[in-house]
Amino acid sequence: MTDEELMRFALAEAERAFALGEVPVGAVVAKNGEVVAAAHNTRETEKNATHHAELLAIDRACRALGGWRLWQCDLFVTLEPCPMCAGAIVNSRIRRVVYGAKDEKAGCCGSVTDLFALPFNHRPVVESGLLEEESRALLQKFFERLRQQRREGSKPKWKKPQS
Amino acid sequence: MTDEELMRFALAEAERAFALGEVPVGAVVAKNGEVVAAAHNTRETEKNATHHAELLAIDRACRALGGWRLWQCDLFVTLEPCPMCAGAIVNSRIRRVVYGAKDEKAGCCGSVTDLFALPFNHRPVVESGLLEEESRALLQKFFERLRQQRREGSKPKWKKPQS
Repeated sequence: MTDEELMRFALAEAERAFALGEVPVGAVVAKNGEVVAAAHNTRETEKNATHHAELLAIDRACRALGGWRLWQCDLFVTLEPCPMCAGAIVNSRIRRVVYGAKDEKAGCCGSVTDLFALPFNHRPVVESGLLEEESRALLQKFFERLRQQRREGSKPKWKKPQS
Repeated sequence: MTDEELMRFALAEAERAFALGEVPVGAVVAKNGEVVAAAHNTRETEKNATHHAELLAIDRACRALGGWRLWQCDLFVTLEPCPMCAGAIVNSRIRRVVYGAKDEKAGCCGSVTDLFALPFNHRPVVESGLLEEESRALLQKFFERLRQQRREGSKPKWKKPQS
């Protein structure tokens, strides 16, 4: 599969998150252009802070390949990784990260900080902006629906985190 | 339980990791001084890059408490958290982090960087140095044994990550 096809696969995962009422983010771990593992955000459904798309995809890729070093693998994700997921990318030695939309509030590939510029023992190649518009449009649709539900007084599954 | 007792609990977890031939790190999530979840590093045993003590303890605490917001919980860990685990602490809204030994190579509570000084939507209180000597001594014992095994030509379970 091409990079764009792999990102469409990640986007389809994000749509599964959307259907669950989750912030729509999807991720794929690929090796030689083939999908090894895929996942979507299930933080609310599973009530688990670690259930981001990338972390779940990396966890599943380790299980699928039987090892923790994913140095022959690339990660495709619809949204710029947060610190936890950027850290999981370092820990798993993912070779290349391709992401869609930027995350100004939590992104750690350049937005809030660039974790990969620090002297950890691994530094992946990073490419941004692939299917950025589609990835961002899905997120915007989610948050618009959330605001609409709030205006109507219904209780959406997703709650704003407590500060 | 007191902070020191909770850190001794984390240290006992680290000793379980040591017995498995894993880098000896242990973690405990506590609420009102009671252990909610505990875990130790099982990266090699489970062949999984996400299986750090803190991430496993946070995952288990979410499951035990039935929610992803651990804002009433404290994390006790024998070694300064890496970027992945520091990110999981932000994501789970852990209130307070107490760690033992510093990690000059990957620590994200001040050693390589201070992730909690960045403008994410949560910032825990951090305390360092509790049972630091015991935590560090166990790590040193592990790496000394590893060097010894290498000198003797045996293949230890733990391998140096590929750069």
